[in-house]
Amino acid sequence: MASKSSSSGKARDYRVVGTRPVRPDGIDKVTGRARYGADAVAPGMLFGAVLRSPHAHARIRGIDVGRAEALPGVKAVITHRDFADTDAALRDVAVNVMARDKALYDGHAVAAVAAVSPSVAARALELIDVDYEVLGHVTDVEAAMRADAPVLHEDMRTAGVEPAPTTPSNIAERVEFGLGDVERGFAAAAVVVEREFVVEASHQGYIEPHACLASIGPDGQGELWCCTQGPYMVREITAAMLGMDISKLRVTPSEIGGGFGGKTTVFIEPVTAALSRKANRPVRLVMSREEVFRATGPTSSAKMWVRMGVTRDGRITAADADLRYQGGAFAGSPVSFGAMTAFACYDLENVRVVGYDVVTNRPKQAAYRAPGAPLSAFAVESVVDELAARIGMDPVDLRLRNAAREGTRTAYGPRFGPIGLVETLEAAKAHPHYRAPLRAHQGRGVACGFWFNFGGQTSVSMSVNADGTVALAVGTVDIGGSRASMCQIAAEELGIPYESVRTVVADTSALGYNDITEGSRTTFSTGMATIHAARDAIRVLCARAARMWGIPEDAVVWEDGHAKPSGANAGDFEPLSLADIAAVAGKTGGPIAGHWEFNAENAGPSFATHLVDVETDPETGRSTVLRYTVVQDAGRAIHPSYVEGQYQGGAVQGIGWALNEEYVYGADGRLQNPGFLDYRVPVASDVPFIDTVIVEVPNPGHPYGVRGVGETSIVPPLGAVGNAVSAASGARQTHVPMSPPRVLASIDRLAEAAE
Amino acid sequence: MASKSSSSGKARDYRVVGTRPVRPDGIDKVTGRARYGADAVAPGMLFGAVLRSPHAHARIRGIDVGRAEALPGVKAVITHRDFADTDAALRDVAVNVMARDKALYDGHAVAAVAAVSPSVAARALELIDVDYEVLGHVTDVEAAMRADAPVLHEDMRTAGVEPAPTTPSNIAERVEFGLGDVERGFAAAAVVVEREFVVEASHQGYIEPHACLASIGPDGQGELWCCTQGPYMVREITAAMLGMDISKLRVTPSEIGGGFGGKTTVFIEPVTAALSRKANRPVRLVMSREEVFRATGPTSSAKMWVRMGVTRDGRITAADADLRYQGGAFAGSPVSFGAMTAFACYDLENVRVVGYDVVTNRPKQAAYRAPGAPLSAFAVESVVDELAARIGMDPVDLRLRNAAREGTRTAYGPRFGPIGLVETLEAAKAHPHYRAPLRAHQGRGVACGFWFNFGGQTSVSMSVNADGTVALAVGTVDIGGSRASMCQIAAEELGIPYESVRTVVADTSALGYNDITEGSRTTFSTGMATIHAARDAIRVLCARAARMWGIPEDAVVWEDGHAKPSGANAGDFEPLSLADIAAVAGKTGGPIAGHWEFNAENAGPSFATHLVDVETDPETGRSTVLRYTVVQDAGRAIHPSYVEGQYQGGAVQGIGWALNEEYVYGADGRLQNPGFLDYRVPVASDVPFIDTVIVEVPNPGHPYGVRGVGETSIVPPLGAVGNAVSAASGARQTHVPMSPPRVLASIDRLAEAAE
Repeated sequence: MASKSSSSGKARDYRVVGTRPVRPDGIDKVTGRARYGADAVAPGMLFGAVLRSPHAHARIRGIDVGRAEALPGVKAVITHRDFADTDAALRDVAVNVMARDKALYDGHAVAAVAAVSPSVAARALELIDVDYEVLGHVTDVEAAMRADAPVLHEDMRTAGVEPAPTTPSNIAERVEFGLGDVERGFAAAAVVVEREFVVEASHQGYIEPHACLASIGPDGQGELWCCTQGPYMVREITAAMLGMDISKLRVTPSEIGGGFGGKTTVFIEPVTAALSRKANRPVRLVMSREEVFRATGPTSSAKMWVRMGVTRDGRITAADADLRYQGGAFAGSPVSFGAMTAFACYDLENVRVVGYDVVTNRPKQAAYRAPGAPLSAFAVESVVDELAARIGMDPVDLRLRNAAREGTRTAYGPRFGPIGLVETLEAAKAHPHYRAPLRAHQGRGVACGFWFNFGGQTSVSMSVNADGTVALAVGTVDIGGSRASMCQIAAEELGIPYESVRTVVADTSALGYNDITEGSRTTFSTGMATIHAARDAIRVLCARAARMWGIPEDAVVWEDGHAKPSGANAGDFEPLSLADIAAVAGKTGGPIAGHWEFNAENAGPSFATHLVDVETDPETGRSTVLRYTVVQDAGRAIHPSYVEGQYQGGAVQGIGWALNEEYVYGADGRLQNPGFLDYRVPVASDVPFIDTVIVEVPNPGHPYGVRGVGETSIVPPLGAVGNAVSAASGARQTHVPMSPPRVLASIDRLAEAAE
Repeated sequence: MASKSSSSGKARDYRVVGTRPVRPDGIDKVTGRARYGADAVAPGMLFGAVLRSPHAHARIRGIDVGRAEALPGVKAVITHRDFADTDAALRDVAVNVMARDKALYDGHAVAAVAAVSPSVAARALELIDVDYEVLGHVTDVEAAMRADAPVLHEDMRTAGVEPAPTTPSNIAERVEFGLGDVERGFAAAAVVVEREFVVEASHQGYIEPHACLASIGPDGQGELWCCTQGPYMVREITAAMLGMDISKLRVTPSEIGGGFGGKTTVFIEPVTAALSRKANRPVRLVMSREEVFRATGPTSSAKMWVRMGVTRDGRITAADADLRYQGGAFAGSPVSFGAMTAFACYDLENVRVVGYDVVTNRPKQAAYRAPGAPLSAFAVESVVDELAARIGMDPVDLRLRNAAREGTRTAYGPRFGPIGLVETLEAAKAHPHYRAPLRAHQGRGVACGFWFNFGGQTSVSMSVNADGTVALAVGTVDIGGSRASMCQIAAEELGIPYESVRTVVADTSALGYNDITEGSRTTFSTGMATIHAARDAIRVLCARAARMWGIPEDAVVWEDGHAKPSGANAGDFEPLSLADIAAVAGKTGGPIAGHWEFNAENAGPSFATHLVDVETDPETGRSTVLRYTVVQDAGRAIHPSYVEGQYQGGAVQGIGWALNEEYVYGADGRLQNPGFLDYRVPVASDVPFIDTVIVEVPNPGHPYGVRGVGETSIVPPLGAVGNAVSAASGARQTHVPMSPPRVLASIDRLAEAAE
């Protein structure tokens, strides 16, 4: 392990937290015993399939399902008419799940079937007659913003502008954040850099396609097994789309083969449920990889303009940005996040960011680790890099000179509490990587990144078994090893071995509400709920010990996994272990449990600094990553290996996006590369070992100091790799992904300009 | 509906309790969507099968599994060597699950296999070579008690006798209960009746055979899906037998196709788990009906002697009984329950009951509704009937004259609190059935019955959904409609519609410990836990309303499903419904839940009086039930239809046992009738509609007055039918079942004696 921790301030000694035990789901996953979404089966199960629009934009004049319904073996055919009307908050999600009057992108679902076999289902799709009126389409953000662009939604009016527009537009919203006076700031600058940038859309590329098994009965009750980051979210949206009470739908999440934000919404779950209800049989629906690419949620793509000014001694005097994010066929691109995070790494007096949320004929974007942030960070970190070069200052030093610290006012309002950006910059500067020699055609890039992190609603229940082991039920799907972390936290609080705790992800009927596993919230929020639930159980354990000893409850304390008498009059008793108390619980009052429900606040932001060395072949434009180091503040690393895993995973996904991954649309509005052969994610041989440094600046909003770590790690790579390729190639990179043809063209343009 | 309720004392007005809503599991069950034990599947699943002893008693000199293991497709073969040693408390259960040095009954498991198909598994069983040394056997209780009987357990010494025996015996224990001076009581009697009785063993006859799917990994963690009355019991025994921590095993109970006590222990669950662990694959094992008969838990059979004395005016002066119960191959027959309940319906000054727990070469008995009680009640109620006839007193009047009441001291110690026996006798006497005319060869029988009922350890969790519906998680398997009852109770407390609550049976990892669904405890204990959990949730709801209004928490009360300001200074606010508060829970503190864990005490005993009319054909001895009326105290009927269902089910099962059902062993010690063709349970055409009267004498130990109702209903039928057949045939019946040959023989003996 190439990680080291630098802890600022000794809080307490941990016994289990900070160690690296084997994860409880590990063997299941490597041996194939783990049950993923597509492993769910039910007696009498049917197979679902979805008919998808071949057109980027088309009015649906009619759908004739008669021939499909008549095919032997077909048990149900559904269209949007099989769903309930949902309120405005869910309308876009519902229309994305199943098109109503228009197909809005290539791959948009228009109908679905359930049949006795996958082949019958496939044949039935061919027998559905959709009467399309093909409309003009737009897949590019700038084209979509033009006044004469084909309009996706006749009722869309741009929000956030005065006066309120009266004509339809593809611009859903304009947002603006800022501080100070930008023009005055630029007037004080010695050097100003201004550039335009493009980031293409990428996909999370989770290995497991969406899969769902639904069984909805004629009594309006049902069960749903699926691969999701948010079983409660699936429950609530599916129930709303089917017109069911929430309590009538029970959602059980499977093991999840990756999500990264892409499984924070629904696609096939309401469809499968509606098919099951109509067929009165269980139905399983599993997406193909092509469907995942065409019809789930890739990222936004963006066109961005950034201008920054700096003094000779490295003080950034002004920063301005214009961000245009297309988020697919519905409003809701993460342009606000892009705008809020764009300059968040810097302590700026004069800053302005304007963002536009634009709809295009592409699939509705979904979250992907720190949604929106990598795009604007690419633009800003590229400009910062250029500013450093222009004033001849080390790029880490320039960032340290301007770094956000405790008390820094953000462009979007709040001031930061204790944060660890400076510590990551200092650790990066001190890292051997930063001094490694470079050869010809090699370049080094630095970039910083920020993410808010999120708390949210969380419920856990813990029960103490008769043998002194503990069952912990959580409602947040385990994506990155959170069951291990929760076992550690429970063991830490209770004073028992890690191995004595088993954490399970409960279904939605067994536990109170939980927000989605997203926003880097799970170790923070579920962990904090686990601490409180353990303390609730300890309260019961102490009361039982008091009863066993015949002394008052307040004369018992919990220390080192034992109840001990405390105080002058408590009496002299041998300490009782958790197992001692659990063994006789039936005689002292019944089962021992602990519970906690809360809305977690005070999630601590996490900052990172990334270093990367690349070699760019001037003949082909192909870039190879030589070294990569992630330095990030974890607040407190519960399980350092999984923190490192998050750092490494974010870096690798960022490298993939930076160098290769992109959605390619043809002039016909159709996705050209819906498969892993043409949409190429990095494989192990494409990347070096990702080195990691865990910085620990405790978050005062968590008992152990935990900050979320899952998202920040994807924010710096586009900028870091961009700066490295710019250095290696000599040509400033402004277009992600920096694929060989694009880099070669930039080198060629440079050569042409020099001629 | 032919039921009516007579409530003693108006406690409160109920809105939902006492109504008859549709059960939430009904449609699933009648349409086949419900998932039972054998419906569980897993990818890569193997099929298990068990090799069973063909001998009633044999030493196992060796087991050679080599040929079986070599058969292609066989993935695991196990014997007792594949299980961990368990402590003494579980040893009998463990040895019953898998024989060690001896096979103790026909059907005793000696080995098991897991293979790729059922046919390969069956072939593998044939290839297992067991070297048996056949021993002498005994299947009859009296034969087993003889000094020269073959001894099952060399280490068994009769407990409960002084001085402690030093030689082995098949008598595991002698128990005695009593009050007063029996001989003085008999001296005061005008009439004394003394008789011997035999009750043969019956089987619960649940429709669903035991079924289990296990998946245990090499990391020592596992999952188990099975049909059981007690998932926590399955978890703890299976974990112990596999040497696992309790927390490492997660048990999910399926829907259950009947249990009646027969699924309160383990048979195949540890076997399936051990096979899965050894094969490192999921394994499913489903018992055949023959296996269910041969190798699960039928009832005890018994030889009994009862003597009672009565004055001319109907005062019972003394009662004495000797009960010999064989409970199969291991100690633990319910003879103590038989002894405690035998005379519990009567207020007696002089009473003595001696019981013997005897082992024989039969399968280890399991619970069957009020275990042990129907046997002794048959004997006692027969003698009471005869006493009434001898003194010329109406049998109901004789019972009323001597009935147990509040304050009656039981033979086993405690005094009764408020009980409803007198009310059931009065209701029976007033019932039209009791005045219906009888023809030749027809007879009427009356009998009473008692059961303790049980509370036990219980955990429930309730969560309030955003739309104001409620999810209730319970850990007690629903056998008799308890999900409906829990929905009613939650709705009653919360003030919301029945339909807004969904109750699910959680798996063992999601909820605190729960005792088995047995002892008629679920509606009482889980219901009480639901009341308290709802009140816990109401406390949170009121706190949230206070926060919404900005007033102190103690200024809010919950009435009619709404939070209302209360008190002079609370302020003037519109009441907030549960849904109003739930909709904004995320903003007022997070998820809203309620929890309760406790060891329920104060279960209220339930008494019943049954009336039955039969016609017995003097030519064949065949008896037909003409009318049957159950009168029983429910304390408070939460869902009267399911209370009636329990009454009817108990009566029908009792009728089956009384007239037909019995285990028939051959001289070879093998069960002769292991199938529903030869072991005949009543079908619909065999019984009349069972009329029911719900008496409600509230149990002061429950907020609503609930008493358990599931078991008492099987206590009177043997006696009631026996008395009716005795009246119809003219021959006193002393041997259950009163099958046609047996009744014909009794008529013939009477005729011979008269000649």
